[in-house]
Amino acid sequence: MESERPLDALNSARNKRVLVELKGGKQFVGKLKAFDIHVNVVLEDAEERFEGETKRKLGIIFIRGDTIIMISPE
Amino acid sequence: MESERPLDALNSARNKRVLVELKGGKQFVGKLKAFDIHVNVVLEDAEERFEGETKRKLGIIFIRGDTIIMISPE
Amino acid sequence: MESERPLDALNSARNKRVLVELKGGKQFVGKLKAFDIHVNVVLEDAEERFEGETKRKLGIIFIRGDTIIMISPE
Amino acid sequence: MESERPLDALNSARNKRVLVELKGGKQFVGKLKAFDIHVNVVLEDAEERFEGETKRKLGIIFIRGDTIIMISPE
Amino acid sequence: MESERPLDALNSARNKRVLVELKGGKQFVGKLKAFDIHVNVVLEDAEERFEGETKRKLGIIFIRGDTIIMISPE
Amino acid sequence: MESERPLDALNSARNKRVLVELKGGKQFVGKLKAFDIHVNVVLEDAEERFEGETKRKLGIIFIRGDTIIMISPE
Amino acid sequence: MESERPLDALNSARNKRVLVELKGGKQFVGKLKAFDIHVNVVLEDAEERFEGETKRKLGIIFIRGDTIIMISPE
Repeated sequence: MESERPLDALNSARNKRVLVELKGGKQFVGKLKAFDIHVNVVLEDAEERFEGETKRKLGIIFIRGDTIIMISPE
Repeated sequence: MESERPLDALNSARNKRVLVELKGGKQFVGKLKAFDIHVNVVLEDAEERFEGETKRKLGIIFIRGDTIIMISPE
Repeated sequence: MESERPLDALNSARNKRVLVELKGGKQFVGKLKAFDIHVNVVLEDAEERFEGETKRKLGIIFIRGDTIIMISPE
Repeated sequence: MESERPLDALNSARNKRVLVELKGGKQFVGKLKAFDIHVNVVLEDAEERFEGETKRKLGIIFIRGDTIIMISPE
Repeated sequence: MESERPLDALNSARNKRVLVELKGGKQFVGKLKAFDIHVNVVLEDAEERFEGETKRKLGIIFIRGDTIIMISPE
Repeated sequence: MESERPLDALNSARNKRVLVELKGGKQFVGKLKAFDIHVNVVLEDAEERFEGETKRKLGIIFIRGDTIIMISPE
Repeated sequence: MESERPLDALNSARNKRVLVELKGGKQFVGKLKAFDIHVNVVLEDAEERFEGETKRKLGIIFIRGDTIIMISPE
């Protein structure tokens, strides 16, 4: 995830497990399969976490970009 | 729902039952019939859920994209 | 309201009574007379509802799209 | 206010008294003098209302569209 | 402030004292010196008001349009 | 800061100390070094203030425009 | 970070440690590796801070621009 443009950085995280934090406080973890310029994101083998604990397992999820605060490879 | 672009991923979920979570905490489940680049979504045989329970049955619903946090095939 | 694009779906609901739910929790019911790509909507014979009860009758109303969560034919 | 496009509907309300409800709960009533595609609105002989009572008289007011929930002819 | 387009209406208020109400409840009063299509506004001899009382005097202020609810000539 | 367009007004404040108020209630004071059409702003010798007191000194800061309510030369 | 355009200012902070404050009150500190016109940002060796204390270490993070209030070199 080293590059000059932020989205190139996301590209380096493709197929790696990432933590995605949302505006409402939700946290999802999963393998980053896809993203676009709006930072819409698709995670595989996703789970929702709460205070470090797995809250529920979700499989594949589509997350709308405008709810995302931060994305970080685990 | 395997692809490089997030909206292609939604395309793979077409005609499958999906869970749609909204910013205000609402959850809808229904068969994904249509979506567009704004992530506006149409569900068929939709129901609103609350803590895993069916709260009301709604038939066909149009959900405005900018209220959506997450979409996941059941 | 069966189609590939969400707005086509709204088109099928034209002249039918629809339920419109807003971000602030408000609910309006009325005959869908018009809508546009922003999901601005015009309802005829509209009424505001609260917990299933008619709260007030409003005649014709224009609802700004960005406040809308969900539209469903009754 | 009968038409296929929502803004045509606003056009039919021009020079009539309308109720304008805002996101923060405010209500203004006045004669609709002007509007644009952003639903920016100008009212004449405007007053702010609260629970059906006139709260203050304002003369001419410009209301920014993105704060508007709903517009209805009285 | 009589015209067909809302921004023409603001133009008629140029160099007059106007009341500007913001989303967070703030109120500013001052002479309207400039505005643009985003409804960004410049007031001269501005003061902040709270419940009809002058809270502080500010001289010239630039107000970002997307925080504005309403503008009205005093 | 006298002009017909609001951003020209900001231009007159360049290299002067300005007060910047944000949506969340924060206040920054500093020398206005740069701004753009989104009202993104750079302040030099910036400090955060709270109820008229200096809360912390920050040096150079970049403030994202969409969080700004108001800018005023001190 | 001295320039006429705010994003040039960010450019001068590249590869330096910066403090990034978000709308929800979160604070991240890290080396600024990338940004774009939306103020999407990539930090390296990032950590989340709370009241001056390191809350957690995160490595590389992508922060979505529209959640950012302020960026300042440490």
